[in-house]
Amino acid sequence: MDYVNGPGRNHLFVPGPVNIPEQVLRAMNRNNEDYRSPAVPALTKVLLEDVKKIFKTTSGTPFLIPTTGTGAWESALTNTLSPGDRIVSFLIGQFSLLWIDQQKRLNFDVDVVESDWGQGADLEALASKIAADKSHTIKAICIVHNETATGVTNNLATVRKILDHYQHPALLLVDGVSSICALDFRMDEWGVDVALTGSQKALSLPTGLGIVCASPKALEAAKTAKSVRVFFDWSDYLKFYKMGTYWPYTPSIQLLYGLRAALDLLFEEGLENVIARHARLGKATRLAVEAWGLKNCTQKEEWFSDTVTAVVVPPYIDSVEIVKRAWKRYNLSLGLGLNKVAGKVFRIGHLGNLNELQLLGCLAGVEMVLKDVGYPVKFGSGVAAASTFLQNSTPLIPSRI
Amino acid sequence: MDYVNGPGRNHLFVPGPVNIPEQVLRAMNRNNEDYRSPAVPALTKVLLEDVKKIFKTTSGTPFLIPTTGTGAWESALTNTLSPGDRIVSFLIGQFSLLWIDQQKRLNFDVDVVESDWGQGADLEALASKIAADKSHTIKAICIVHNETATGVTNNLATVRKILDHYQHPALLLVDGVSSICALDFRMDEWGVDVALTGSQKALSLPTGLGIVCASPKALEAAKTAKSVRVFFDWSDYLKFYKMGTYWPYTPSIQLLYGLRAALDLLFEEGLENVIARHARLGKATRLAVEAWGLKNCTQKEEWFSDTVTAVVVPPYIDSVEIVKRAWKRYNLSLGLGLNKVAGKVFRIGHLGNLNELQLLGCLAGVEMVLKDVGYPVKFGSGVAAASTFLQNSTPLIPSRI
Amino acid sequence: MDYVNGPGRNHLFVPGPVNIPEQVLRAMNRNNEDYRSPAVPALTKVLLEDVKKIFKTTSGTPFLIPTTGTGAWESALTNTLSPGDRIVSFLIGQFSLLWIDQQKRLNFDVDVVESDWGQGADLEALASKIAADKSHTIKAICIVHNETATGVTNNLATVRKILDHYQHPALLLVDGVSSICALDFRMDEWGVDVALTGSQKALSLPTGLGIVCASPKALEAAKTAKSVRVFFDWSDYLKFYKMGTYWPYTPSIQLLYGLRAALDLLFEEGLENVIARHARLGKATRLAVEAWGLKNCTQKEEWFSDTVTAVVVPPYIDSVEIVKRAWKRYNLSLGLGLNKVAGKVFRIGHLGNLNELQLLGCLAGVEMVLKDVGYPVKFGSGVAAASTFLQNSTPLIPSRI
Amino acid sequence: MDYVNGPGRNHLFVPGPVNIPEQVLRAMNRNNEDYRSPAVPALTKVLLEDVKKIFKTTSGTPFLIPTTGTGAWESALTNTLSPGDRIVSFLIGQFSLLWIDQQKRLNFDVDVVESDWGQGADLEALASKIAADKSHTIKAICIVHNETATGVTNNLATVRKILDHYQHPALLLVDGVSSICALDFRMDEWGVDVALTGSQKALSLPTGLGIVCASPKALEAAKTAKSVRVFFDWSDYLKFYKMGTYWPYTPSIQLLYGLRAALDLLFEEGLENVIARHARLGKATRLAVEAWGLKNCTQKEEWFSDTVTAVVVPPYIDSVEIVKRAWKRYNLSLGLGLNKVAGKVFRIGHLGNLNELQLLGCLAGVEMVLKDVGYPVKFGSGVAAASTFLQNSTPLIPSRI
Repeated sequence: MDYVNGPGRNHLFVPGPVNIPEQVLRAMNRNNEDYRSPAVPALTKVLLEDVKKIFKTTSGTPFLIPTTGTGAWESALTNTLSPGDRIVSFLIGQFSLLWIDQQKRLNFDVDVVESDWGQGADLEALASKIAADKSHTIKAICIVHNETATGVTNNLATVRKILDHYQHPALLLVDGVSSICALDFRMDEWGVDVALTGSQKALSLPTGLGIVCASPKALEAAKTAKSVRVFFDWSDYLKFYKMGTYWPYTPSIQLLYGLRAALDLLFEEGLENVIARHARLGKATRLAVEAWGLKNCTQKEEWFSDTVTAVVVPPYIDSVEIVKRAWKRYNLSLGLGLNKVAGKVFRIGHLGNLNELQLLGCLAGVEMVLKDVGYPVKFGSGVAAASTFLQNSTPLIPSRI
Repeated sequence: MDYVNGPGRNHLFVPGPVNIPEQVLRAMNRNNEDYRSPAVPALTKVLLEDVKKIFKTTSGTPFLIPTTGTGAWESALTNTLSPGDRIVSFLIGQFSLLWIDQQKRLNFDVDVVESDWGQGADLEALASKIAADKSHTIKAICIVHNETATGVTNNLATVRKILDHYQHPALLLVDGVSSICALDFRMDEWGVDVALTGSQKALSLPTGLGIVCASPKALEAAKTAKSVRVFFDWSDYLKFYKMGTYWPYTPSIQLLYGLRAALDLLFEEGLENVIARHARLGKATRLAVEAWGLKNCTQKEEWFSDTVTAVVVPPYIDSVEIVKRAWKRYNLSLGLGLNKVAGKVFRIGHLGNLNELQLLGCLAGVEMVLKDVGYPVKFGSGVAAASTFLQNSTPLIPSRI
Repeated sequence: MDYVNGPGRNHLFVPGPVNIPEQVLRAMNRNNEDYRSPAVPALTKVLLEDVKKIFKTTSGTPFLIPTTGTGAWESALTNTLSPGDRIVSFLIGQFSLLWIDQQKRLNFDVDVVESDWGQGADLEALASKIAADKSHTIKAICIVHNETATGVTNNLATVRKILDHYQHPALLLVDGVSSICALDFRMDEWGVDVALTGSQKALSLPTGLGIVCASPKALEAAKTAKSVRVFFDWSDYLKFYKMGTYWPYTPSIQLLYGLRAALDLLFEEGLENVIARHARLGKATRLAVEAWGLKNCTQKEEWFSDTVTAVVVPPYIDSVEIVKRAWKRYNLSLGLGLNKVAGKVFRIGHLGNLNELQLLGCLAGVEMVLKDVGYPVKFGSGVAAASTFLQNSTPLIPSRI
Repeated sequence: MDYVNGPGRNHLFVPGPVNIPEQVLRAMNRNNEDYRSPAVPALTKVLLEDVKKIFKTTSGTPFLIPTTGTGAWESALTNTLSPGDRIVSFLIGQFSLLWIDQQKRLNFDVDVVESDWGQGADLEALASKIAADKSHTIKAICIVHNETATGVTNNLATVRKILDHYQHPALLLVDGVSSICALDFRMDEWGVDVALTGSQKALSLPTGLGIVCASPKALEAAKTAKSVRVFFDWSDYLKFYKMGTYWPYTPSIQLLYGLRAALDLLFEEGLENVIARHARLGKATRLAVEAWGLKNCTQKEEWFSDTVTAVVVPPYIDSVEIVKRAWKRYNLSLGLGLNKVAGKVFRIGHLGNLNELQLLGCLAGVEMVLKDVGYPVKFGSGVAAASTFLQNSTPLIPSRI
């Protein structure tokens, strides 16, 4: 435990898990409770209604599963698909890769559409495949809304347009792990059939809840999907929803109250304001990167992510050293480059309960780390670029006007 | 949230989730951390070593899975068995029933050995089946060490003896959810191949960790087991263990530090002392039940559970009313009767971080509730029976001698 | 720190500091704040209004002083009196003794009216003194509403009647440390000029706030009182009240939010219900003591305290052993006998955020301790006496009906 | 309570109360305890020993008084002096002013040595007075080590030299509120007779403990000092120290455990490293102020404070607007200018549990605020100046090397 005791706060800028606000820590600071008393179902009932708002759905059915993002993926797949089903899946970075690995191990017939890491999903390839698939052999499209490894945001509206254009009935399964509650996400409008996130991302909770939302079409598919599942089976939840007791197995009392507090904070700030804040912090980060003379791993502006920025380092620098140094000297936690981009990029997560000055502290820290590892950064350059933008765009805190 | 605000503390006597000690609440009161920094692997490494102690194993390999007991069950089964495998499974109450349901849904060929609810596993039937199975078609024995629904503890040493006697190679998979850290459990000595528990039981943590321990034989079986699995796949963990980073996906930082604190408390008290304390509280509870003139759902002394007591109510009383009343009037949380024994029994959980006076307060409360619902209890009778025993047997608190 | 780690919860039955409810612990689990921002004055303003309710005053002015009860005493005395002023003060136990000691050291001319420890204030003596004091040399009456050392509650209404009867202008200064928020206390109706309590008593907070409330007459007296004071000077507070910033020096942010939560809980339960609960728990305790065949230190029923019961032990037992044993063996914290009654009584505090089953657990524990030290208690006798009463009188928890 | 909910963390840069580290929040997250059990004296005994280390004294006697800095002042004065005693006291800013006000109200004969706000104590004047005071009418020198209102650190070593040079027996009473645990402070070496601080300053705890340390000479003086005192009287503490129970009245259990954790953190980092960190952050702040083209309120380098910097704003700007704006728009809490410098300076506190990136975030925030209020700051200029220095001087975090 010695490692944790740096003086001052840890500056947590990995793209998840993210900072937990004090209000949420307080809400979770509690003893266990009997989840079969009337109190927990009453709490859960309202939570399930409110969780739908973060997916922007009115017709969806949410599940709060005691698991991580990986489990949420498995829940989305096994409830809607049968072994051997053909699915189209986009490989654009480490997390889409891991999901595809899961899809294969679950015995689906995965049609992988690969792009360079740093590019978005190849939607032209999708259009071709969909156009060609007259007999509707494609059962689902699996897409990561925001690839956390490369800082790439895919255009889900276009995916929906393609499917609609060809009147293709494939399910649309979306990993929203590093997007939901931070980026613009519209489950109903975009016809997403299963969307999912994890509590430790933009919701700013501890890890432990896989939050999955299923459209009526997905629930219908679940009735015939033959993938073997028990723990992740939605039908157990639905049975308990009907009974009004809600939980097929023991939930984390602490995470339920924490989720309540997290949603209260989100709604108090306003979901649109939260999204605008992420847009602001994302742009500020990119302006800093540009000012440093470094490149964004994301290759086109249309894919820029407002929750994470992957920064490409010069070839003579190992990005692993940057992450190590940041943690060892400045108590700054940055994200490593993963797999194909290991050593080549480091990542700044800017999602969740975060504000302008926290980000500027991080950017100032990155400048010092860059100098530490031999990159000739001009001190203050990134901070200045970000500040210039932020000083113009940051609104007053609504509760303090 | 109004429901929770009774004056004074909630008296939590469901057989899980149980009371979290203040030391553990404190340890978990913390922000998220980057789990890829050196700190979390260093913490995890020691946790994995220490967790083996609660299983009493030196050769086992533990997995800390972000899931519940249901997920831990699934982990035990899918990693060691293939669809169609014949397993012998004992049905003695609601939790063994649920596990059997899972086993069937996972497509195993389940040979169910049923007993009356209130009886232990029928080990004679096991002996017959094992004796008859010369060709070793039985791949695994699945047994719940302590059936939480009826307060029945099974004799695992005898199960091992039977298997050894016939030199039968079946795997021994044990649900230790309401036994491990509370009852005598000896993974290595009893040749248990997979043992599992949940964090919210005797470990006295929040829900969220499925703690699974696999013997070398189980790990070997995992190499050829054909059950489809990804989230619950041990191989992902083993890969990361080898790399020294430990986590295939994001762990709950709070639960890791909480587990550290929980283990520290256990070891400080001494595991044998913890087990003795449970024996003491279990016996005290049973003496009270006897003094009230009520029957224990558990039919023979050899099966008496030291973590939960299911109390049979007279036919003219609905045990649901007892549980409701206890909660509504005395802020006392008791366990419902489940399924076959619904309305017929209520349950007193006496596991986890609990002491004598907490139990006596509960017993006094049960007396008042019994009177409330029309049972002619003699006030003080159960408390007196329990106190007489406890005053003789309770040791000084070691740290205060 | 080893001492604290008994298994299970500590049973805290000293008459203060008392159990802090989880809701209050949560509210206090927060970082410091700038107390000069608009947030803290806004919070304080409402707190000061709400605090008046616990004193049952509309005309009083409350002060939240960062101190203990001893400091609150000093605040009451030095703001209203001048050195040499004659005051009548009742000595009935250790806390009235300590206050009198303070009064003497502050150079007042203290007219001590002593009673046996276990008796209430001698109000006949007061009447005589007041009757005789035609020239109004008596400037103040100092009385402890509830003497925590002996479990004696004085009759303040009678004190007021005496003063009114003789139209005597003496100030009435009341120590309500172990009464306010627990016993019936009516500042305005009883014409109390200064009332005070400490946060760690019935308000169920940590120690740290001396809460003092002054009548208009007391504020008037403060203008001419010549006792030297700075830290405890009300005038500094009043200056900052007028400015709307409220704090002459740094308050404890945590205690302010804790007080907010504590008041919310009190008002949610209802102050009258809280007082009724204390009456119930007090009576239950006394019934238990009677059933054990032991005597209450309080000599007449009219003085029985509903917040603390001092139990007289037989001469062959040292009550210090009872307190030691309770803590060492049962994790039960009882109050020692103090000064004159040291060794002769032990005390059960039953105030603050407490419910029936907590008390019954304590009573069961006391029975075991009594046996431990050689007193021939009948197990269950006290619990039965208390339960019989409580089962008849305990209301449903309002939020759970 | 709405005010507190800005997105992200509050950036707390007032010169107290300061950020509480998570480790300390955790330690304080606990129920009350019986302070008369063996546990609390055992804890207190070690705390008192360890507290001496932060004063750098071996011969001093510390008192942990449940009060604020104002109360600690009163404790220092009333225990060592008698009404009418002549004392020399330095007026250099708002806090020395308030202390002098207290000294006068406590009826000492205060010989005020005034300097311009922004200058240090006039030690030449002290030398003259001491030289002239052959008959030793001066009983004490009262000096604020670090004037929090102006960011001025006085030279205590010189004060001692002056007293020694003239062999003058005056007591040396030092307000170390914003210096101890942050600046170089040497009680024994500098012959300080009473030193004091508050828990909410560099110790990084909540408000609530006035920590006072008395030299043997001060304790001797206390025996004859005639100032009236009860709550602040050291003799009550000393009586309880002798008995080994330590507490004349109820301490805050939470603050005691918090103090334990705070000291553990200090000692783990190393007191000299903590002081070096403050020196680093102080210099970085001053470099930023210089880069912005603004003036430090502190008029000479020899008085520069490493815990707080008071920044003079141009005459056309009202510094109140800066503080308001910082809080309303950036969740940044800065210190106001007080009294004589109200409107003219704002203050950056850089003391307590704080690190480089937190400070840089603050400095970036100040730049934006300056622009907001119309000062033509060059974005990034202050951050660059600070970073250039910090990147050169910041050591690796010892526990992470």
